[in-house]
Amino acid sequence: MTQEAALARALEEKAIERIIHDYAYFLDMNQPERMVELFVDDCEVSYAPNFGASGIEAYKLTLDGIGTFFKGTSHHVSGVVIDWVSETEATVRAVVLAIHRYTKDRPDGILYGQYHDVVVKQDGKWKFKTRILKTTMTTDYHVKASNPIGRGE
Amino acid sequence: MTQEAALARALEEKAIERIIHDYAYFLDMNQPERMVELFVDDCEVSYAPNFGASGIEAYKLTLDGIGTFFKGTSHHVSGVVIDWVSETEATVRAVVLAIHRYTKDRPDGILYGQYHDVVVKQDGKWKFKTRILKTTMTTDYHVKASNPIGRGE
Amino acid sequence: MTQEAALARALEEKAIERIIHDYAYFLDMNQPERMVELFVDDCEVSYAPNFGASGIEAYKLTLDGIGTFFKGTSHHVSGVVIDWVSETEATVRAVVLAIHRYTKDRPDGILYGQYHDVVVKQDGKWKFKTRILKTTMTTDYHVKASNPIGRGE
Repeated sequence: MTQEAALARALEEKAIERIIHDYAYFLDMNQPERMVELFVDDCEVSYAPNFGASGIEAYKLTLDGIGTFFKGTSHHVSGVVIDWVSETEATVRAVVLAIHRYTKDRPDGILYGQYHDVVVKQDGKWKFKTRILKTTMTTDYHVKASNPIGRGE
Repeated sequence: MTQEAALARALEEKAIERIIHDYAYFLDMNQPERMVELFVDDCEVSYAPNFGASGIEAYKLTLDGIGTFFKGTSHHVSGVVIDWVSETEATVRAVVLAIHRYTKDRPDGILYGQYHDVVVKQDGKWKFKTRILKTTMTTDYHVKASNPIGRGE
Repeated sequence: MTQEAALARALEEKAIERIIHDYAYFLDMNQPERMVELFVDDCEVSYAPNFGASGIEAYKLTLDGIGTFFKGTSHHVSGVVIDWVSETEATVRAVVLAIHRYTKDRPDGILYGQYHDVVVKQDGKWKFKTRILKTTMTTDYHVKASNPIGRGE
């Protein structure tokens, strides 16, 4: 790859990182309508087996009500790495620490996990095509099922 | 924007991210004199209502004594996103997880928050013009007042 | 430095950040053989006084058995800053939050620390020449000795 092409990709990667961080921000801000804008119409989202969505309309329903279930959440996303599939598609891996403070009186639920995404560029904007949350481990978390990270034995 | 201009900005953004990370590092290292160097003379800092500083001299006083109040602190800053205002000014948003181990015998204080900054380039160096800490939630934290993040209802 | 040289460095820095994040990922995935590939043959690794390795063969032994000691780990690495030493060598500083869930029935061990690395480019690949873990503080962590961060008094 020429340096010019590598630099062009580096700029795209900044735009990709932006949606990774905006997702977490809008989630903590309880702005599901802004989260939805980050996904393509035919998105596939999986937070756990039988907990996710196929398509943007189903995803909207998935997000419905999260705002009142939590008093607050804090998502800390780091370790973002990007691998290119084509000029308009990339896979992304990131690490997440998410603290959930429930409306109900119960201890904070903590999720340690990984995001595994496919992002695509549509009409000049990077969006999530696939977002899979894999769970490393949890503490006092309300979701019991999970997509395993596949840790080596 | 031309690719050349976009790349110039990308380089500046690296310099901006550097002060975000240096702030956290100098804080954990208890080097307030190095923190002060990251701010412009007419800085505005708010950690909470009635807890902050207007101007660099006031800010120095704010930092005074933090070293002995804590045995140690660990600041984990992620989710940094930068929006440009002009060629010498930008706004920055970041997520912070800060653990405070007190000198006194009490449980660690945990702060989950967001930094909202205005950074400016002066004499070739990026510095904080405004730094506002917004608090998502806390656990056993000694500061009870806070700037809210404005989470949606 | 010309903008062209600065951009070339920015691309190298992306490759350097990649090994920082891959190290944490392979660790959480319990893939020590992938971790080893990130180090040069004459590497120096120190996790604590008398806990580390000199050379790649010794490092392989250090990693031996970590997989069964933990049910899971989650490493959250942020605050990565890079300083250049030469065109093929750089120092890296990062902040780490590492949660360790033990196979034995005991509370999760939490490490708050910093990585201080020397990375070198060999045969077109960036690798760790030196990796020193400094410990800010811990909670219920099994390793009691530590390399101090050198927090100011």
